[in-house]
Amino acid sequence: MYGDHDLAMALNERDLIENIFAPLTRQGDGSVGLTDDAAFLPPNGLCDLVITQDSLISEVHFRANDSPKNIARKSLRVNLSDLAAKGAVAHSYLLSIALPSNCKRCWVEEFAAGLASDQTTYGVKLIGGDTVRSPHALMITITALGYIPRGKMVRRVGANPGDNIYVTGTLGDSTLGLAVLNEFSPALQVLDEGARLHLCNRYFLPQPRTALAPVLLDHASAAMDISDGLLGDLTLLINASNVSAKIDLNALPISPSASAAIANDESLRKRAYTGGDDYEILASVSPEAASSFEDDAARVGVSVTCIGHIVVRDDLLILQDSNEQAIKTDRLSFSHF
Amino acid sequence: MYGDHDLAMALNERDLIENIFAPLTRQGDGSVGLTDDAAFLPPNGLCDLVITQDSLISEVHFRANDSPKNIARKSLRVNLSDLAAKGAVAHSYLLSIALPSNCKRCWVEEFAAGLASDQTTYGVKLIGGDTVRSPHALMITITALGYIPRGKMVRRVGANPGDNIYVTGTLGDSTLGLAVLNEFSPALQVLDEGARLHLCNRYFLPQPRTALAPVLLDHASAAMDISDGLLGDLTLLINASNVSAKIDLNALPISPSASAAIANDESLRKRAYTGGDDYEILASVSPEAASSFEDDAARVGVSVTCIGHIVVRDDLLILQDSNEQAIKTDRLSFSHF
Repeated sequence: MYGDHDLAMALNERDLIENIFAPLTRQGDGSVGLTDDAAFLPPNGLCDLVITQDSLISEVHFRANDSPKNIARKSLRVNLSDLAAKGAVAHSYLLSIALPSNCKRCWVEEFAAGLASDQTTYGVKLIGGDTVRSPHALMITITALGYIPRGKMVRRVGANPGDNIYVTGTLGDSTLGLAVLNEFSPALQVLDEGARLHLCNRYFLPQPRTALAPVLLDHASAAMDISDGLLGDLTLLINASNVSAKIDLNALPISPSASAAIANDESLRKRAYTGGDDYEILASVSPEAASSFEDDAARVGVSVTCIGHIVVRDDLLILQDSNEQAIKTDRLSFSHF
Repeated sequence: MYGDHDLAMALNERDLIENIFAPLTRQGDGSVGLTDDAAFLPPNGLCDLVITQDSLISEVHFRANDSPKNIARKSLRVNLSDLAAKGAVAHSYLLSIALPSNCKRCWVEEFAAGLASDQTTYGVKLIGGDTVRSPHALMITITALGYIPRGKMVRRVGANPGDNIYVTGTLGDSTLGLAVLNEFSPALQVLDEGARLHLCNRYFLPQPRTALAPVLLDHASAAMDISDGLLGDLTLLINASNVSAKIDLNALPISPSASAAIANDESLRKRAYTGGDDYEILASVSPEAASSFEDDAARVGVSVTCIGHIVVRDDLLILQDSNEQAIKTDRLSFSHF
C-alpha cells in the first residue's frame, strides 16, 4: 500500500493507470477514467481555453532523489503558474510520465499522492496523458488547461510607457534554496535552520499565484510568470511589448531568509534577479489601475511590490542600483542551453 | 541553413523557438507565435475538444540514430492516429522536446522540417510547447487537439454483441520492420529490398487513418487505434464494452511484404497480432451499418477488413486459427514495463 517501501512491486502499466492515476480523475468528466485514447472537453460558454505545457527532467528541474510528492507538485505547479500569469482559471491537466525501469510502485503512489493533494489545493483534475518506461531518467510533461473570458488572455504584449511594474511574493528564494542543497556557499550553510528550510521549500514547492489570476485579468496590461529569472523574463516582456523598463534593484522584494543570506555574502544578491525557478508573477499595470490592482491583490492575499516602470523603447533595460547609478544590461537569466 | 551539417551551431533556446519552431505556427491563431507562456483556443461552435498526449523516448519508440524528420513525423502521427480513432478532426498540437546537450542545430532544423511536411499533409499547426535541455536522451511529448460534434467522441465503450470487428490497413508490418532493422531473423534478411524497405518504412512512419475519422463518427459503435498489438488493444476495447470477441486469425490483413516474411518463417505470424506500432484503427460496427461503413471507407480510400465479431461477454477473447480451433487467450501485447 501507499508508502510501504518493503512491499514495492514491479511496475505494470495497466495497474498504474487503473489503480494509481485513474483515481485522480473525476467521474462524469471528459477523462472517461483514463479508459480511452483521448479525453474530451465540452465548450465552456464563451470562454477561450488556455493551454500551457512544461516538461521537467531529472537533474535539470528537480534532483533525482527529491521526494516524489514534491516532484509531482512542482511539475503541476509550474504549469499552474503559467495559467495564473495569463489570468486563466485552471481546470484540468494531462500528465505524461516516463518512469525509469527501476522505479518502484510505491514511488509512483507517492507521486500520485502529491498530485492528489495539489488537485484539492488548486481545484484541478487529471484528464489524460501517457505512462511510458524510460531507459534513461525520469521525465514529466504536464499540459495544463484553463479558461478565460473570450479574447482576454493577459499577454506579454501590452505594457505601455508609464505603467508600474509589479512582482508578486519574493524573488531569489528558490535559487538560493538550490544553492543551500548544493552546499554552494558558506554564507548559506551558516543560516539558521528555519531560514535554510524556507529557501529549500521554495525550491521544492513553487507557490503559483493562482489567486491573482482574476486581478490580472481586471487590471494588468501585460504579465508573465518568472521562471528563468526576473531580468531575462522582463526582457521577454518588454521586447514583446516594444518598450523598455527601468527597475530599482533596491525595491526588489527579498524574504528575510534571503536577506540574511545576502547579508552574509553580498554576491548572492544578484540571484534575486538572475536566478530562476521563482514562479512569481511579473505584471505591468497602468498608473490609473495601480491602486485598484494593489487593493485587489491585497484582498486575495497576494503580496505585490512595485519595482519600477515601463518607459519608452530605448535602452533595453535600465537597472538602478543603491547608488542611483543606471546600469544598462543585456539579457541575464537561466538558459537551458 | 537547413541540413548543412558543417555549419552546425550550438543550441540557443531563444533561437530554436524564434527561428525554428515559431515558423510552424500560423499567424493570427492562439499560438501567438510562441511568444507567450500559453496558447489559447476560442470555442469552436458546439464542438467538444478532443485531447490526446503521447510521449516518445529514444530507444523505446524510435532509435537514436533514426532521421530527425522521421522521429518528428512519427511523434506527431501517433497522436493523430489517436484523434482519428476517436472520430475527431485534428486541429493543432503542442510539442515539448528535451534535447540532449550534444544535439546540433541542424538536427533540430531537420526535425522541424519533418513537422512542417506533416503539418501540410494533415492540416495541423503548432500552437505551443516547451524546449528544454536533456542531460539524458531525446524525449518528445506531443499533445494533439481535435474537434468533434458535442458528445460524439467514439469510445472504446459501445461495442455490442453481433457487431463486426474491423481493422484498417495491414497488421504487423511495423514490428517486422523493426525486426529487419535489428537483424532479428534470417527470414527477414533474405526478403527482397522492396519488401524490407516497405516494412521499415511502416516502422519509421505510421500512416494515421485520419480520412476514416468521419466514417467512424457515422458508423462505429466503438473504436481505438492499435498501438500495442491487436490482441492487447482488442482486449482493452472489449473489457471497456463488457463484451467478448471472436477473431479469425486467417482473416487478418497482412501485406505482401509481411506475407513473404511469414512464408519464410511461420513463427513471425504472431507478430501481426501481438506486435505493436501498427497505428491502424480497430472498430466495431453494427451489422446494420456494416455495408455503409465499408462503402464509406472505400470512398475515403481506407482499406478495412472484417476480422471477426463481438460476442456476449463470456471468455475474454476467442481466436480461431486455420484449423478452426478456438484458442482462448489472455492479454498478449507490448507492455511498457
